[in-house]
Amino acid sequence: MESIDTLISARWIIPVEPDGVVLEHHSLAIQGGKIVEVLPAATKKYQPAETIELPNHAVTPGLVNAHTHAAMSLFRGLADDLPLMDWLNNHIWPAEGKWVNDEFVRDGTELAIAEMLKGGTTCFSDMYFFPEETAHVCANAGMRAVVGLIVIDFPTVWAQTAEEYLRKGLKLHDELRNSELITTAFAPHAPYTVSDGPLEKIRTMNNELNLPVHIHLHETAHEVDEAVSKTGQRPLERIADLDLVNPNLVAVHMTTLLPGEIDPLAHAGANVVHCPQSNMKLASGFCPVNAMMQAGVNVALGTDSAASNNDLDMFDEMRTAALLAKAVANDATAVPAHSALRMATLNGARALGLDDQIGSLVPGKSADIAAIDLSSIATQPVYEPISQIVYSAGGTQVTDVWIAGRRLLKNRQLATLDEQMILQKAGAWRDRIQAANSGA
Amino acid sequence: MESIDTLISARWIIPVEPDGVVLEHHSLAIQGGKIVEVLPAATKKYQPAETIELPNHAVTPGLVNAHTHAAMSLFRGLADDLPLMDWLNNHIWPAEGKWVNDEFVRDGTELAIAEMLKGGTTCFSDMYFFPEETAHVCANAGMRAVVGLIVIDFPTVWAQTAEEYLRKGLKLHDELRNSELITTAFAPHAPYTVSDGPLEKIRTMNNELNLPVHIHLHETAHEVDEAVSKTGQRPLERIADLDLVNPNLVAVHMTTLLPGEIDPLAHAGANVVHCPQSNMKLASGFCPVNAMMQAGVNVALGTDSAASNNDLDMFDEMRTAALLAKAVANDATAVPAHSALRMATLNGARALGLDDQIGSLVPGKSADIAAIDLSSIATQPVYEPISQIVYSAGGTQVTDVWIAGRRLLKNRQLATLDEQMILQKAGAWRDRIQAANSGA
Repeated sequence: MESIDTLISARWIIPVEPDGVVLEHHSLAIQGGKIVEVLPAATKKYQPAETIELPNHAVTPGLVNAHTHAAMSLFRGLADDLPLMDWLNNHIWPAEGKWVNDEFVRDGTELAIAEMLKGGTTCFSDMYFFPEETAHVCANAGMRAVVGLIVIDFPTVWAQTAEEYLRKGLKLHDELRNSELITTAFAPHAPYTVSDGPLEKIRTMNNELNLPVHIHLHETAHEVDEAVSKTGQRPLERIADLDLVNPNLVAVHMTTLLPGEIDPLAHAGANVVHCPQSNMKLASGFCPVNAMMQAGVNVALGTDSAASNNDLDMFDEMRTAALLAKAVANDATAVPAHSALRMATLNGARALGLDDQIGSLVPGKSADIAAIDLSSIATQPVYEPISQIVYSAGGTQVTDVWIAGRRLLKNRQLATLDEQMILQKAGAWRDRIQAANSGA
Repeated sequence: MESIDTLISARWIIPVEPDGVVLEHHSLAIQGGKIVEVLPAATKKYQPAETIELPNHAVTPGLVNAHTHAAMSLFRGLADDLPLMDWLNNHIWPAEGKWVNDEFVRDGTELAIAEMLKGGTTCFSDMYFFPEETAHVCANAGMRAVVGLIVIDFPTVWAQTAEEYLRKGLKLHDELRNSELITTAFAPHAPYTVSDGPLEKIRTMNNELNLPVHIHLHETAHEVDEAVSKTGQRPLERIADLDLVNPNLVAVHMTTLLPGEIDPLAHAGANVVHCPQSNMKLASGFCPVNAMMQAGVNVALGTDSAASNNDLDMFDEMRTAALLAKAVANDATAVPAHSALRMATLNGARALGLDDQIGSLVPGKSADIAAIDLSSIATQPVYEPISQIVYSAGGTQVTDVWIAGRRLLKNRQLATLDEQMILQKAGAWRDRIQAANSGA
């Protein structure tokens, strides 16, 4: 018998690799934060220091939220039912100008991480100001994240010029060089907010750094039309001319694509992050998910921020992605349940350059794991656990979460975050923001 | 001080009438199963036998699920990611032929009612075989329902001919005449499964009975195209020729509408039930919800069955309805949160002919109420409770439910149903069905 740290035995284990496989009554052997083996539960091979029995649960890779702005959870529901540019220009950007500082980012990111962990998300890709605060909060919580080094042409409280954004971002990248859980990505906000100069600098620096380049791209038809009328070029065309369409590209939203724009994305090995609920809520347009996946584009899934969603529930997002893809493709076989689960796990890991470490339950990968209790009325009976996870379950059915073998959620309780304190701080921000809005 | 049965005081009360209003720190006074008054919580006017304090909750009218096939919850996730006619012809109808009997309908409906109550739904409109069993289970549970008197041309285990369906249905209607909570509707399955004869009989009998006529209509483009090629008529045109387009019509799905078909529906006072998740999952097409609501059509909301959804969560359905309407209309202001909540409450009540009794929290209506705890991480902070309910909350945040003043869900526990027994029966059905499928 081989000694290991932890043996997790579950009713169903869904490794995501191979695609669509469900292993009944299996166990995960974990040692030193990594998966050693996936084996039948009856096998007596390991002597674990800790044994976890999950008789009603499906165990999956931890979910990867490939696009969010975590701190904006403090703006959840502040301004709804508005079009993107009205929402940004008249509500979100003014609110950010007034409220965002290091404390806001700390408190908002903690709120977001608490929600994500409780909902089975073990890794998120973020784009926001004060990314050093985001990294700090993640490190304290034991959360895995890809912190975006945001770049934008206009001044904010965090930086004044694109050069300053880049300088501060690179400083953070250096500071995080030895972090096990936290990596970085370049995060130029969008083609319409970042000029060629900074994008060229990112391209040059990335010859050496080889980071993901996380950018909003083709979020709306308006963005595309305006770019064409101003520059004669579609935004994707410009990004391609800047030599940024390559395996590092993490292009978020990607609505309003022409049929001829899909194959080149696949050939370039570029990644797309689909944010279905945000796209629908802001009437941003439809991302041709089924066509892209059939062409071989790696499509991951993101919630976008809680200000445009209004939650960070990746179950809800998987369900919406699977349903919307069928409706848009006019094909009920588009994005079946197991594909939606792969989008929310392995495809996200691949988009973030982390698929050698996370995204599936295979030996050698990090023990980033979510356990989902399917015994409740709303998910019974169970014929196909993956169907249940995608079409019936919600984040509240997640009971346990591990990141790198560390149990951060235990029987629905957060191990590294103080939930009451987080709620108290969120309430205090709401009171201040609401009072200022009422007074205005 | 006036004696009453119950006083429910909540952080927020959302009466739905008037539209969009949120009353902070208010109370509902309840006497004899009916709402007596909605008043500020600080008012000392009533002497209640029971006082309920809900300091973190939004209280809304109980949700109305205007279209489902409750018993099919036992088929949840049995066959997914398939087009409607393949799903029906090769999976659902054969499974029904093999398994559906009175016991199946009892056990499946109990499972569905348990899920609905736990998710804040206090009334559902059903269409299924053995409707007398559905009515019986509802009566035992204290659930409000509109039981569909199903009619279909082909024989099933419940009836052989359209005449027999109608005869059995009318017998049930008579038996339920004195029921407070359970009413009936004619439920001809669909234009493509019910011929003119039975539809004409329903029309004639309804001159006297004045019941809702609950029918699947324009579920898919295929249905419409096939009708046109066989008969030269679009299904809606045929139903109109049969004089069934009137305030009793409860037309479910209504995708594939021509612009000119919307105004006549509004003028006729007909009702539409939108089932967004089912429509997306089966790639059935888009219902023009925003255009219909702007034309004045009463649009209610339904989950459809758990076999095509795959849950009966009306929160999920409200969210999807609001999001999808924006995407389809290309207008982020379409179906704002308060409209989605009205669709799921008052509009449903109106479609079912029950808006004098339920659907809003106003004096004189029945005390059909849902209490939603918004204190959890995923719904904090709260700026706009209606936004939170529609865009962030899920059915699992419902803690308490009353129907006609009777508390059927108390701190998330079912008062009239045995949850463990329901789960056990669902598991037993799953075992039998799965064993037969594996053996085949």
